[in-house]
Amino acid sequence: MEGKAVTGTLYVIGTGPGMPEQMTPEAARAVEKAEEFFGYFPYLDRLSLRGDQRKVASDNREELDRASAALARAAAGIDVAVVSGGDPGVFAMAAAVCEAIDKGPAEWRQVDLVVTPGVTAMLAVAARIGAPLGHDFCAISLSDNLKPWDVIARRLRLVAEAGLVIALYNPISKARPWQLGKAFEILREVLPASVPVIFGRAAGRPDEKITVMALSEADPAVADMATCVMIGSPETRVIDRAGKPNLVYTPRFHAGGNV
Amino acid sequence: MEGKAVTGTLYVIGTGPGMPEQMTPEAARAVEKAEEFFGYFPYLDRLSLRGDQRKVASDNREELDRASAALARAAAGIDVAVVSGGDPGVFAMAAAVCEAIDKGPAEWRQVDLVVTPGVTAMLAVAARIGAPLGHDFCAISLSDNLKPWDVIARRLRLVAEAGLVIALYNPISKARPWQLGKAFEILREVLPASVPVIFGRAAGRPDEKITVMALSEADPAVADMATCVMIGSPETRVIDRAGKPNLVYTPRFHAGGNV
Repeated sequence: MEGKAVTGTLYVIGTGPGMPEQMTPEAARAVEKAEEFFGYFPYLDRLSLRGDQRKVASDNREELDRASAALARAAAGIDVAVVSGGDPGVFAMAAAVCEAIDKGPAEWRQVDLVVTPGVTAMLAVAARIGAPLGHDFCAISLSDNLKPWDVIARRLRLVAEAGLVIALYNPISKARPWQLGKAFEILREVLPASVPVIFGRAAGRPDEKITVMALSEADPAVADMATCVMIGSPETRVIDRAGKPNLVYTPRFHAGGNV
Repeated sequence: MEGKAVTGTLYVIGTGPGMPEQMTPEAARAVEKAEEFFGYFPYLDRLSLRGDQRKVASDNREELDRASAALARAAAGIDVAVVSGGDPGVFAMAAAVCEAIDKGPAEWRQVDLVVTPGVTAMLAVAARIGAPLGHDFCAISLSDNLKPWDVIARRLRLVAEAGLVIALYNPISKARPWQLGKAFEILREVLPASVPVIFGRAAGRPDEKITVMALSEADPAVADMATCVMIGSPETRVIDRAGKPNLVYTPRFHAGGNV
Protein backbone atom coordinates (compact mmCIF):
# COMPACT_ATOMS: atom_id res chain seq x y z
CA MET A 1 0.00 0.00 0.00
CA GLU A 2 2.66 2.51 1.06
CA GLY A 3 5.22 1.77 -1.67
CA LYS A 4 7.89 -0.91 -1.71
CA ALA A 5 10.67 0.65 0.31
CA VAL A 6 10.77 -0.54 3.90
CA THR A 7 10.84 2.46 6.18
CA GLY A 8 10.75 2.54 9.93
CA THR A 9 8.21 4.32 12.07
CA LEU A 10 9.02 7.68 13.61
CA TYR A 11 7.21 8.11 16.92
CA VAL A 12 7.00 11.65 18.27
CA ILE A 13 6.32 11.06 21.93
CA GLY A 14 4.97 13.39 24.61
CA THR A 15 6.01 12.28 28.07
CA GLY A 16 3.62 14.65 29.84
CA PRO A 17 4.55 17.17 32.54
CA GLY A 18 7.08 14.89 34.20
CA MET A 19 5.26 12.64 36.64
CA PRO A 20 5.20 9.13 35.07
CA GLU A 21 1.54 8.83 36.09
CA GLN A 22 0.70 11.64 33.67
CA MET A 23 2.19 9.95 30.59
CA THR A 24 -0.47 8.14 28.53
CA PRO A 25 -0.37 4.35 27.96
CA GLU A 26 -0.24 5.13 24.23
CA ALA A 27 3.02 7.04 24.72
CA ALA A 28 4.41 4.29 26.99
CA ARG A 29 3.63 1.71 24.30
CA ALA A 30 5.44 3.81 21.69
CA VAL A 31 8.47 3.91 24.02
CA GLU A 32 8.46 0.09 24.10
CA LYS A 33 8.40 -0.16 20.30
CA ALA A 34 11.17 2.24 19.35
CA GLU A 35 14.78 1.16 18.96
CA GLU A 36 16.50 4.56 19.06
CA PHE A 37 15.55 7.68 21.03
CA PHE A 38 16.33 11.25 20.05
CA GLY A 39 15.73 14.12 22.45
CA TYR A 40 16.89 16.75 24.87
CA PHE A 41 18.72 14.75 27.54
CA PRO A 42 16.49 15.53 30.58
CA TYR A 43 13.47 14.16 28.68
CA LEU A 44 15.36 11.02 27.63
CA ASP A 45 16.48 10.54 31.24
CA ARG A 46 12.85 10.20 32.30
CA LEU A 47 12.43 7.03 30.26
CA SER A 48 13.21 3.55 31.54
CA LEU A 49 14.72 1.92 28.48
CA ARG A 50 15.84 -1.66 27.85
CA GLY A 51 19.47 -2.57 27.17
CA ASP A 52 18.75 -2.95 23.44
CA GLN A 53 17.33 0.56 23.14
CA ARG A 54 19.72 3.40 22.31
CA LYS A 55 19.65 7.04 23.43
CA VAL A 56 20.89 9.89 21.22
CA ALA A 57 20.77 12.89 23.53
CA SER A 58 21.27 16.43 22.29
CA ASP A 59 21.05 20.00 23.47
CA ASN A 60 17.72 21.83 23.59
CA ARG A 61 18.65 24.24 20.80
CA GLU A 62 19.28 21.63 18.12
CA GLU A 63 15.70 20.70 17.30
CA LEU A 64 15.88 20.67 13.52
CA ASP A 65 19.16 18.72 13.44
CA ARG A 66 17.70 16.22 15.90
CA ALA A 67 14.54 15.80 13.82
CA SER A 68 16.60 15.32 10.66
CA ALA A 69 18.84 12.72 12.31
CA ALA A 70 15.79 10.79 13.49
CA LEU A 71 14.13 10.94 10.06
CA ALA A 72 17.30 9.66 8.36
CA ARG A 73 17.35 6.66 10.70
CA ALA A 74 13.62 5.97 10.20
CA ALA A 75 14.05 6.20 6.42
CA ALA A 76 16.79 3.56 6.78
CA GLY A 77 14.27 1.17 8.34
CA ILE A 78 14.81 1.75 12.07
CA ASP A 79 11.89 2.45 14.44
CA VAL A 80 12.87 5.66 16.17
CA ALA A 81 11.36 7.96 18.78
CA VAL A 82 11.71 11.71 19.14
CA VAL A 83 10.89 12.63 22.71
CA SER A 84 9.36 15.84 24.08
CA GLY A 85 8.19 16.76 27.56
CA GLY A 86 4.52 17.68 27.81
CA ASP A 87 2.76 17.45 24.47
CA PRO A 88 5.04 17.15 21.43
CA GLY A 89 2.69 19.36 19.38
CA VAL A 90 2.93 22.42 21.65
CA PHE A 91 6.17 24.39 21.15
CA ALA A 92 8.00 21.11 20.79
CA MET A 93 9.37 18.44 18.49
CA ALA A 94 6.36 17.60 16.28
CA ALA A 95 6.72 20.91 14.43
CA ALA A 96 10.48 20.41 14.06
CA VAL A 97 9.90 16.94 12.58
CA CYS A 98 7.32 18.31 10.13
CA GLU A 99 9.66 21.12 9.16
CA ALA A 100 12.45 18.60 8.51
CA ILE A 101 10.08 16.52 6.35
CA ASP A 102 9.00 19.65 4.47
CA LYS A 103 12.61 20.63 3.68
CA GLY A 104 14.17 17.18 3.44
CA PRO A 105 14.56 14.48 0.76
CA ALA A 106 11.46 12.88 -0.77
CA GLU A 107 11.97 9.58 1.04
CA TRP A 108 11.39 11.24 4.41
CA ARG A 109 7.76 11.82 3.35
CA GLN A 110 7.33 8.04 3.19
CA VAL A 111 8.34 7.50 6.83
CA ASP A 112 5.39 6.37 8.98
CA LEU A 113 4.83 9.24 11.41
CA VAL A 114 2.99 8.59 14.68
CA VAL A 115 2.57 11.50 17.10
CA THR A 116 1.35 10.54 20.58
CA PRO A 117 -0.22 13.53 22.33
CA GLY A 118 0.41 14.34 25.97
CA VAL A 119 -0.62 16.60 28.82
CA THR A 120 0.99 19.95 28.06
CA ALA A 121 2.35 22.16 30.87
CA MET A 122 -0.51 24.65 30.99
CA LEU A 123 -3.06 21.86 31.51
CA ALA A 124 -0.99 20.35 34.31
CA VAL A 125 -0.59 23.72 36.05
CA ALA A 126 -4.27 24.54 35.58
CA ALA A 127 -5.30 21.25 37.18
CA ARG A 128 -3.25 22.02 40.30
CA ILE A 129 -4.82 25.43 40.90
CA GLY A 130 -8.47 24.97 39.85
CA ALA A 131 -9.61 25.88 36.34
CA PRO A 132 -7.91 29.03 35.05
CA LEU A 133 -8.31 27.76 31.46
CA GLY A 134 -12.04 27.16 31.93
CA HIS A 135 -12.96 29.57 29.17
CA ASP A 136 -11.22 30.99 26.05
CA PHE A 137 -7.44 31.01 26.31
CA CYS A 138 -4.23 31.12 24.30
CA ALA A 139 -0.70 29.78 24.48
CA ILE A 140 2.14 32.06 23.43
CA SER A 141 5.87 31.35 23.44
CA LEU A 142 7.81 34.27 24.85
CA SER A 143 11.01 33.17 23.16
CA ASP A 144 12.31 35.84 20.80
CA ASN A 145 14.75 33.29 19.45
CA LEU A 146 11.72 32.07 17.50
CA LYS A 147 10.06 35.32 16.45
CA PRO A 148 10.83 39.04 16.62
CA TRP A 149 9.89 40.76 19.88
CA ASP A 150 7.52 43.17 18.08
CA VAL A 151 5.41 40.21 16.94
CA ILE A 152 5.25 38.93 20.51
CA ALA A 153 4.34 42.37 21.91
CA ARG A 154 1.60 42.84 19.34
CA ARG A 155 0.16 39.38 20.02
CA LEU A 156 0.12 40.00 23.77
CA ARG A 157 -1.80 43.26 23.33
CA LEU A 158 -4.36 41.70 20.99
CA VAL A 159 -5.08 38.61 23.08
CA ALA A 160 -5.38 40.73 26.24
CA GLU A 161 -7.83 43.01 24.41
CA ALA A 162 -9.70 39.89 23.33
CA GLY A 163 -10.15 38.88 26.99
CA LEU A 164 -8.40 35.53 26.67
CA VAL A 165 -6.51 33.88 29.50
CA ILE A 166 -2.85 33.81 28.42
CA ALA A 167 -0.45 30.92 29.02
CA LEU A 168 3.17 31.90 28.44
CA TYR A 169 5.63 29.15 27.48
CA ASN A 170 9.42 29.72 27.54
CA PRO A 171 8.91 32.77 29.78
CA ILE A 172 12.51 33.37 30.76
CA SER A 173 16.06 32.05 30.44
CA LYS A 174 19.58 33.29 31.07
CA ALA A 175 19.77 34.48 27.48
CA ARG A 176 16.30 36.08 27.65
CA PRO A 177 16.13 37.83 31.04
CA TRP A 178 13.93 40.90 30.33
CA GLN A 179 11.11 39.61 28.12
CA LEU A 180 8.75 38.44 30.85
CA GLY A 181 8.95 41.76 32.72
CA LYS A 182 8.25 43.61 29.49
CA ALA A 183 5.30 41.27 28.79
CA PHE A 184 3.82 42.13 32.21
CA GLU A 185 4.25 45.85 31.40
CA ILE A 186 2.34 45.45 28.14
CA LEU A 187 -0.42 43.45 29.81
CA ARG A 188 -0.76 46.02 32.64
CA GLU A 189 -1.63 48.62 30.01
CA VAL A 190 -4.63 46.53 28.91
CA LEU A 191 -5.77 44.40 31.85
CA PRO A 192 -7.03 45.29 35.36
CA ALA A 193 -4.30 45.37 38.01
CA SER A 194 -6.11 42.70 40.03
CA VAL A 195 -6.00 40.01 37.35
CA PRO A 196 -4.37 36.90 38.88
CA VAL A 197 -1.05 35.68 37.52
CA ILE A 198 -0.11 32.04 38.13
CA PHE A 199 3.52 30.94 38.15
CA GLY A 200 3.31 27.16 37.76
CA ARG A 201 6.65 25.46 38.18
CA ALA A 202 7.12 21.70 37.71
CA ALA A 203 3.41 20.95 38.21
CA GLY A 204 2.82 17.51 39.68
CA ARG A 205 6.52 16.87 40.30
CA PRO A 206 8.23 16.69 43.71
CA ASP A 207 9.73 20.17 43.22
CA GLU A 208 6.37 21.71 42.25
CA LYS A 209 5.82 25.34 43.20
CA ILE A 210 2.68 27.24 42.30
CA THR A 211 2.51 30.95 43.11
CA VAL A 212 -0.38 33.34 42.50
CA MET A 213 0.03 37.15 42.46
CA ALA A 214 -1.99 40.07 41.18
CA LEU A 215 -0.78 41.36 37.80
CA SER A 216 0.17 44.66 39.47
CA GLU A 217 2.66 42.79 41.67
CA ALA A 218 3.73 40.02 39.31
CA ASP A 219 7.49 39.53 39.64
CA PRO A 220 9.35 37.98 36.68
CA ALA A 221 12.00 36.68 39.10
CA VAL A 222 9.48 34.09 40.33
CA ALA A 223 9.70 32.32 36.95
CA ASP A 224 12.43 30.08 35.61
CA MET A 225 12.76 27.91 32.51
CA ALA A 226 10.54 25.20 34.03
CA THR A 227 7.68 27.63 34.74
CA CYS A 228 4.47 28.10 32.78
CA VAL A 229 3.11 31.57 33.53
CA MET A 230 -0.63 32.13 33.17
CA ILE A 231 -2.29 35.53 33.19
CA GLY A 232 -5.99 35.54 33.95
CA SER A 233 -8.67 37.37 32.00
CA PRO A 234 -10.82 40.10 33.60
CA GLU A 235 -13.34 37.30 34.35
CA THR A 236 -10.87 35.06 36.20
CA ARG A 237 -11.68 34.66 39.90
CA VAL A 238 -9.77 33.61 43.02
CA ILE A 239 -11.48 31.54 45.73
CA ASP A 240 -10.11 31.89 49.25
CA ARG A 241 -10.25 28.58 51.13
CA ALA A 242 -9.28 28.79 54.79
CA GLY A 243 -6.47 26.30 55.45
CA LYS A 244 -6.24 25.20 51.82
CA PRO A 245 -4.54 26.80 48.81
CA ASN A 246 -6.63 29.34 46.93
CA LEU A 247 -8.35 28.20 43.76
CA VAL A 248 -8.19 30.19 40.52
CA TYR A 249 -10.82 29.68 37.82
CA THR A 250 -12.30 31.33 34.77
CA PRO A 251 -16.09 30.96 34.68
CA ARG A 252 -17.76 29.12 31.82
CA PHE A 253 -20.09 32.05 31.22
CA HIS A 254 -19.22 35.53 29.99
CA ALA A 255 -21.96 38.12 30.38
CA GLY A 256 -20.45 40.52 27.86
CA GLY A 257 -20.02 44.23 28.36
CA ASN A 258 -16.50 44.52 29.70
CA VAL A 259 -14.55 43.58 26.62
CA MET B 1 -4.30 20.16 59.59
CA GLU B 2 -7.39 20.64 57.47
CA GLY B 3 -9.96 21.07 60.27
CA LYS B 4 -11.82 18.35 62.12
CA ALA B 5 -14.72 17.61 59.79
CA VAL B 6 -14.17 14.50 57.69
CA THR B 7 -14.81 15.36 54.07
CA GLY B 8 -14.44 13.17 51.04
CA THR B 9 -12.25 13.85 48.06
CA LEU B 10 -13.71 15.24 44.87
CA TYR B 11 -11.78 14.03 41.82
CA VAL B 12 -12.34 15.94 38.61
CA ILE B 13 -11.24 13.44 36.00
CA GLY B 14 -10.29 13.92 32.36
CA THR B 15 -10.74 10.73 30.35
CA GLY B 16 -8.86 12.05 27.32
CA PRO B 17 -10.13 12.10 23.73
CA GLY B 18 -11.88 8.75 24.00
CA MET B 19 -9.39 6.02 23.29
CA PRO B 20 -8.59 4.31 26.65
CA GLU B 21 -4.90 4.36 25.71
CA GLN B 22 -4.98 8.16 25.88
CA MET B 23 -6.27 8.37 29.47
CA THR B 24 -3.42 8.89 31.94
CA PRO B 25 -2.65 6.34 34.69
CA GLU B 26 -3.27 9.17 37.20
CA ALA B 27 -6.84 9.51 35.93
CA ALA B 28 -7.31 5.71 35.92
CA ARG B 29 -6.15 5.57 39.55
CA ALA B 30 -8.64 8.29 40.51
CA VAL B 31 -11.40 6.23 38.87
CA GLU B 32 -10.44 3.30 41.10
CA LYS B 33 -10.64 5.42 44.25
CA ALA B 34 -13.98 7.15 43.79
CA GLU B 35 -17.24 5.68 45.06
CA GLU B 36 -19.72 7.77 43.07
CA PHE B 37 -19.40 9.19 39.53
CA PHE B 38 -21.12 12.29 38.22
CA GLY B 39 -21.05 13.14 34.54
CA TYR B 40 -22.60 13.41 31.13
CA PHE B 41 -23.67 9.83 30.37
CA PRO B 42 -21.44 9.14 27.31
CA TYR B 43 -18.36 9.97 29.38
CA LEU B 44 -19.51 7.76 32.26
CA ASP B 45 -20.16 4.94 29.80
CA ARG B 46 -16.48 4.93 28.86
CA LEU B 47 -15.47 3.87 32.38
CA SER B 48 -15.26 0.25 33.53
CA LEU B 49 -16.58 0.51 37.08
CA ARG B 50 -16.83 -2.11 39.83
CA GLY B 51 -20.17 -3.27 41.20
CA ASP B 52 -19.70 -1.12 44.33
CA GLN B 53 -19.20 2.08 42.33
CA ARG B 54 -22.28 4.15 41.49
CA LYS B 55 -23.00 6.25 38.39
CA VAL B 56 -25.08 9.43 38.52
CA ALA B 57 -25.52 10.34 34.83
CA SER B 58 -26.97 13.64 33.74
CA ASP B 59 -27.52 15.69 30.61
CA ASN B 60 -24.74 17.81 29.13
CA ARG B 61 -26.47 21.10 29.96
CA GLU B 62 -26.65 20.62 33.72
CA GLU B 63 -23.03 21.25 34.62
CA LEU B 64 -23.53 23.48 37.66
CA ASP B 65 -26.22 21.23 39.18
CA ARG B 66 -23.99 18.22 38.62
CA ALA B 67 -21.01 19.94 40.25
CA SER B 68 -23.14 20.96 43.23
CA ALA B 69 -24.54 17.46 43.68
CA ALA B 70 -21.02 16.02 43.65
CA LEU B 71 -19.74 18.62 46.15
CA ALA B 72 -22.63 17.91 48.52
CA ARG B 73 -21.75 14.21 48.50
CA ALA B 74 -18.03 14.90 48.99
CA ALA B 75 -18.80 17.26 51.89
CA ALA B 76 -20.77 14.37 53.43
CA GLY B 77 -17.62 12.22 53.42
CA ILE B 78 -17.97 10.29 50.16
CA ASP B 79 -15.13 10.09 47.62
CA VAL B 80 -16.72 11.23 44.39
CA ALA B 81 -15.62 11.77 40.79
CA VAL B 82 -16.85 14.30 38.28
CA VAL B 83 -15.98 13.03 34.82
CA SER B 84 -15.18 15.03 31.67
CA GLY B 85 -13.98 13.92 28.26
CA GLY B 86 -10.63 15.36 27.17
CA ASP B 87 -9.15 17.63 29.80
CA PRO B 88 -11.53 18.68 32.59
CA GLY B 89 -9.98 22.16 32.68
CA VAL B 90 -10.76 23.07 29.05
CA PHE B 91 -14.42 24.07 28.53
CA ALA B 92 -15.41 21.33 30.96
CA MET B 93 -16.27 20.37 34.52
CA ALA B 94 -13.34 21.80 36.51
CA ALA B 95 -14.65 25.35 36.01
CA ALA B 96 -18.19 24.27 36.94
CA VAL B 97 -16.90 22.68 40.16
CA CYS B 98 -14.94 25.83 41.04
CA GLU B 99 -17.99 27.97 40.31
CA ALA B 100 -20.11 25.77 42.59
CA ILE B 101 -17.50 26.07 45.35
CA ASP B 102 -17.38 29.86 44.85
CA LYS B 103 -21.16 30.19 45.20
CA GLY B 104 -21.84 27.33 47.60
CA PRO B 105 -21.79 26.82 51.39
CA ALA B 106 -18.52 27.30 53.31
CA GLU B 107 -18.07 23.57 53.93
CA TRP B 108 -17.64 22.94 50.19
CA ARG B 109 -14.36 24.90 50.38
CA GLN B 110 -13.03 22.25 52.72
CA VAL B 111 -13.56 19.38 50.28
CA ASP B 112 -10.28 17.95 49.01
CA LEU B 113 -10.23 18.80 45.31
CA VAL B 114 -8.03 16.77 42.95
CA VAL B 115 -8.12 17.62 39.24
CA THR B 116 -6.43 15.08 36.95
CA PRO B 117 -5.49 16.68 33.63
CA GLY B 118 -5.99 14.94 30.31
CA VAL B 119 -5.31 15.20 26.60
CA THR B 120 -7.76 17.79 25.31
CA ALA B 121 -9.37 17.42 21.87
CA MET B 122 -7.19 19.96 20.02
CA LEU B 123 -4.01 18.15 21.08
CA ALA B 124 -5.41 14.80 19.94
CA VAL B 125 -6.47 16.21 16.56
CA ALA B 126 -3.16 18.04 16.13
CA ALA B 127 -1.22 14.81 16.77
CA ARG B 128 -3.12 13.00 13.99
CA ILE B 129 -2.38 15.62 11.32
CA GLY B 130 1.16 16.79 12.14
CA ALA B 131 1.75 19.88 14.26
CA PRO B 132 -0.77 22.64 13.53
CA LEU B 133 -0.37 23.93 17.11
CA GLY B 134 3.40 24.09 16.79
CA HIS B 135 3.47 27.82 17.43
CA ASP B 136 1.20 30.36 19.20
CA PHE B 137 -2.45 29.29 19.29
CA CYS B 138 -5.73 29.81 21.09
CA ALA B 139 -8.81 27.82 22.05
CA ILE B 140 -12.19 29.49 21.74
CA SER B 141 -15.61 28.03 22.48
CA LEU B 142 -18.09 28.92 19.76
CA SER B 143 -21.06 28.34 22.04
CA ASP B 144 -23.15 31.46 22.40
CA ASN B 145 -25.01 29.75 25.22
CA LEU B 146 -21.94 30.75 27.23
CA LYS B 147 -21.20 34.25 25.96
CA PRO B 148 -22.85 36.77 23.64
CA TRP B 149 -22.09 36.35 19.93
CA ASP B 150 -20.56 39.83 19.70
CA VAL B 151 -17.89 38.79 22.23
CA ILE B 152 -17.12 35.69 20.15
CA ALA B 153 -16.97 37.69 16.90
CA ARG B 154 -14.65 40.27 18.45
CA ARG B 155 -12.36 37.59 19.86
CA LEU B 156 -12.14 35.80 16.51
CA ARG B 157 -11.14 39.01 14.74
CA LEU B 158 -8.47 39.86 17.32
CA VAL B 159 -6.85 36.43 17.46
CA ALA B 160 -6.80 36.21 13.65
CA GLU B 161 -5.16 39.65 13.52
CA ALA B 162 -2.67 38.38 16.10
CA GLY B 163 -1.68 35.53 13.77
CA LEU B 164 -2.59 32.74 16.20
CA VAL B 165 -3.77 29.31 15.10
CA ILE B 166 -7.38 29.02 16.32
CA ALA B 167 -8.94 25.87 17.79
CA LEU B 168 -12.73 26.10 17.97
CA TYR B 169 -14.51 23.99 20.58
CA ASN B 170 -18.30 23.46 20.51
CA PRO B 171 -18.36 24.53 16.84
CA ILE B 172 -21.90 23.51 16.01
CA SER B 173 -25.04 21.85 17.37
CA LYS B 174 -28.71 21.54 16.43
CA ALA B 175 -29.47 24.59 18.54
CA ARG B 176 -26.49 26.54 17.14
CA PRO B 177 -26.47 25.86 13.38
CA TRP B 178 -25.14 29.15 11.91
CA GLN B 179 -22.30 30.19 14.20
CA LEU B 180 -19.49 28.22 12.56
CA GLY B 181 -20.36 29.57 9.09
CA LYS B 182 -20.39 33.09 10.48
CA ALA B 183 -17.04 32.46 12.19
CA PHE B 184 -15.52 31.41 8.85
CA GLU B 185 -16.92 34.61 7.28
CA ILE B 186 -15.25 36.75 9.93
CA LEU B 187 -11.95 34.90 9.58
CA ARG B 188 -12.01 35.20 5.77
CA GLU B 189 -12.03 38.99 6.21
CA VAL B 190 -8.72 38.81 8.10
CA LEU B 191 -6.84 35.70 6.94
CA PRO B 192 -5.55 34.56 3.52
CA ALA B 193 -8.00 32.34 1.60
CA SER B 194 -5.42 29.55 1.47
CA VAL B 195 -5.10 29.10 5.23
CA PRO B 196 -5.79 25.41 6.03
CA VAL B 197 -8.82 24.51 8.13
CA ILE B 198 -8.78 21.15 9.92
CA PHE B 199 -12.01 19.42 10.90
CA GLY B 200 -10.94 16.85 13.47
CA ARG B 201 -13.70 14.47 14.45
CA ALA B 202 -13.28 11.79 17.11
CA ALA B 203 -9.47 11.83 16.87
CA GLY B 204 -7.93 8.47 17.73
CA ARG B 205 -11.30 6.70 17.94
CA PRO B 206 -12.61 4.09 15.47
CA ASP B 207 -14.95 6.65 13.89
CA GLU B 208 -12.18 9.24 13.45
CA LYS B 209 -12.45 11.55 10.45
CA ILE B 210 -9.95 14.32 9.76
CA THR B 211 -10.62 16.67 6.85
CA VAL B 212 -8.46 19.58 5.65
CA MET B 213 -9.79 22.36 3.42
CA ALA B 214 -8.67 25.86 2.49
CA LEU B 215 -10.43 28.58 4.49
CA SER B 216 -12.00 29.85 1.25
CA GLU B 217 -13.79 26.50 0.86
CA ALA B 218 -14.33 25.55 4.51
CA ASP B 219 -17.81 24.07 4.82
CA PRO B 220 -19.49 24.21 8.26
CA ALA B 221 -21.53 21.12 7.36
CA VAL B 222 -18.37 19.01 7.74
CA ALA B 223 -18.42 19.68 11.51
CA ASP B 224 -20.62 18.10 14.14
CA MET B 225 -20.67 18.25 17.96
CA ALA B 226 -17.73 15.81 18.19
CA THR B 227 -15.52 17.94 15.93
CA CYS B 228 -12.70 20.26 16.92
CA VAL B 229 -12.16 22.79 14.12
CA MET B 230 -8.72 24.34 13.75
CA ILE B 231 -7.94 27.32 11.54
CA GLY B 232 -4.30 27.77 10.63
CA SER B 233 -2.34 31.00 10.83
CA PRO B 234 -0.77 32.62 7.74
CA GLU B 235 2.39 30.66 8.64
CA THR B 236 0.72 27.24 8.73
CA ARG B 237 1.90 24.88 5.97
CA VAL B 238 0.57 21.74 4.28
CA ILE B 239 2.96 18.95 3.25
CA ASP B 240 1.84 16.76 0.36
CA ARG B 241 2.95 13.15 0.86
CA ALA B 242 2.30 10.85 -2.09
CA GLY B 243 0.23 7.89 -0.85
CA LYS B 244 -0.04 9.19 2.70
CA PRO B 245 -2.32 11.81 4.24
CA ASN B 246 -1.08 15.39 4.04
CA LEU B 247 0.59 16.86 7.10
CA VAL B 248 -0.31 20.28 8.48
CA TYR B 249 2.11 22.15 10.70
CA THR B 250 2.88 25.61 12.00
CA PRO B 251 6.63 26.31 11.97
CA ARG B 252 8.45 27.06 15.21
CA PHE B 253 9.94 30.21 13.71
CA HIS B 254 8.14 33.37 12.66
CA ALA B 255 10.20 35.75 10.57
CA GLY B 256 7.94 38.74 11.25
CA GLY B 257 6.65 41.13 8.61
CA ASN B 258 3.31 39.66 7.64
CA VAL B 259 1.30 40.37 10.80
